[in-house]
Amino acid sequence: MIREAAERIRPIAQRTPLLTSRTFDAASQVIAFFKCENLQKGGAFKIRGAANLVFSLDKPKQVIAYSSGNHAQATAIAARHVGAACTIVMPADAPRSKLAATRGYGANVVTYDRFRESREPIAAAIIEKTGATLIPPFDHPLIIAGQGTAALELLEQAPGLDALIAPVGGGGLLSGSAIAARSVNPKMRIFGAEPERANDTYLSFRKGERVEVTPDTIADGLRSPTPGKITFAIVRELAEDILLVTEDEIRATVKFLLTRMKILVEPSGAVSAAAVLHRKLPAGIGRVGVILSGGNVDFEQLAGI
Amino acid sequence: MIREAAERIRPIAQRTPLLTSRTFDAASQVIAFFKCENLQKGGAFKIRGAANLVFSLDKPKQVIAYSSGNHAQATAIAARHVGAACTIVMPADAPRSKLAATRGYGANVVTYDRFRESREPIAAAIIEKTGATLIPPFDHPLIIAGQGTAALELLEQAPGLDALIAPVGGGGLLSGSAIAARSVNPKMRIFGAEPERANDTYLSFRKGERVEVTPDTIADGLRSPTPGKITFAIVRELAEDILLVTEDEIRATVKFLLTRMKILVEPSGAVSAAAVLHRKLPAGIGRVGVILSGGNVDFEQLAGI
Repeated sequence: MIREAAERIRPIAQRTPLLTSRTFDAASQVIAFFKCENLQKGGAFKIRGAANLVFSLDKPKQVIAYSSGNHAQATAIAARHVGAACTIVMPADAPRSKLAATRGYGANVVTYDRFRESREPIAAAIIEKTGATLIPPFDHPLIIAGQGTAALELLEQAPGLDALIAPVGGGGLLSGSAIAARSVNPKMRIFGAEPERANDTYLSFRKGERVEVTPDTIADGLRSPTPGKITFAIVRELAEDILLVTEDEIRATVKFLLTRMKILVEPSGAVSAAAVLHRKLPAGIGRVGVILSGGNVDFEQLAGI
Repeated sequence: MIREAAERIRPIAQRTPLLTSRTFDAASQVIAFFKCENLQKGGAFKIRGAANLVFSLDKPKQVIAYSSGNHAQATAIAARHVGAACTIVMPADAPRSKLAATRGYGANVVTYDRFRESREPIAAAIIEKTGATLIPPFDHPLIIAGQGTAALELLEQAPGLDALIAPVGGGGLLSGSAIAARSVNPKMRIFGAEPERANDTYLSFRKGERVEVTPDTIADGLRSPTPGKITFAIVRELAEDILLVTEDEIRATVKFLLTRMKILVEPSGAVSAAAVLHRKLPAGIGRVGVILSGGNVDFEQLAGI
């Protein structure tokens, strides 16, 4: 399915570059290969999964998603590519830049008051009325397969890796990456990276079942309260561990990537690099593939960091 | 010479990625292909020229350069690679980050008071005493040939270009790029981009002889008061025009490249993109190669921008 996804999304997804940095390697004590999904169309890996699902639909007239982040823009881009109408349900107080970007990609943005309303019934009413197809952010086999294409490219670009690490929010990227990596190399060691303050997958992994938390982290793309049902089953089976990073470690890594490596990575996208830079990987790993999952950060938020 | 340089510097220089952006193209009304020398080792294209000259020397024991910027770091990196000692003469009030980075690459940094002393006699005294070889920043055939390798790669990565544009300070990058591009495609249109407030090459180009100015621009890598003798002869023959950009256009472009394209480009490195984004190119150009020449900018300076 991941190889099929790679073919399907080829017209829209970029083959993002791979970067290395001796300065990073000297600090982390491993050799890191960075897959730059912050340079992906829409600024994040999310286009891979959204396009794979949208392009799999039979002549879709209308799609819908609820997301305040990168999945919204990805769904809008994918829908526009196939000429489908797109509705995105977003909180009215979402960053103006994200509301504007989503509208800029041609989506009809429906806002709601997140303190008084809940987005699911709003989306359900629109689906009922229009027959739109829901594009979920992570817990769907075609979304997972699409996200896995990033790791597939990474493994072609950097052969001979011992390990792979990806940020984990809902788990779409990590589960897809894990399947891709293990299919290419059954001995590949797989790690997820998560903020201490959004440690739902870490806790679930230890308990052996899905746990819910109340996330409070600057990594706004990883604020899912609980892992997905499908994604967690895959992560539980294939990941060796979930590594936690502090808010300060995330900030320091965003700054390192910007000033030393000259790339803008959003806090959520940098947690994988943060775990490697702060030496959270176990011993015995020489070469690690690191997925930098996105780069959408406001200039003002960046100044704060 | 440029093809020889490409072979010679292969052990040390990165083949930097090429990026595109539909958002940029929509704003500029041309299709732009960005050669990301900000992602080059040392954070700028300068390693290409410095390594080409240093690697051409017969078992060099010691090299020396005077530079407050990217050429200093490039020379230090190239010298370390061949096991040569390296002295860099820098103003005592150079940004601490640049002093630290240059020392970090193993160079012996000699500082001077730029209000009371001049760097040439300081360097001459060190050369007299140690027999070190001077690595000039731009006006040398092997430096020019090294810088030309960036354009050579760009032309391989993006075939079918109508035009090429590069920032111009002393003119090493532009002259090397022009020779490379014209050798591959004799019809390629060549442009330099320069800040209005450091317009020495613009004025020289119009007058037909080298003019000296007093630069005052945030593009600190382009503050050369006059073009090089060798570089200007090449630029005069091969460039179609030198395009000027304002300080505000430079700042807006740094911000665009950072927030929309997720890459950090220093003001000097962004003047080429600034000229394209602000539609300074003449009509009739469909596809343009844009060299982003460097990414070394302080976090504090960036916050100011």
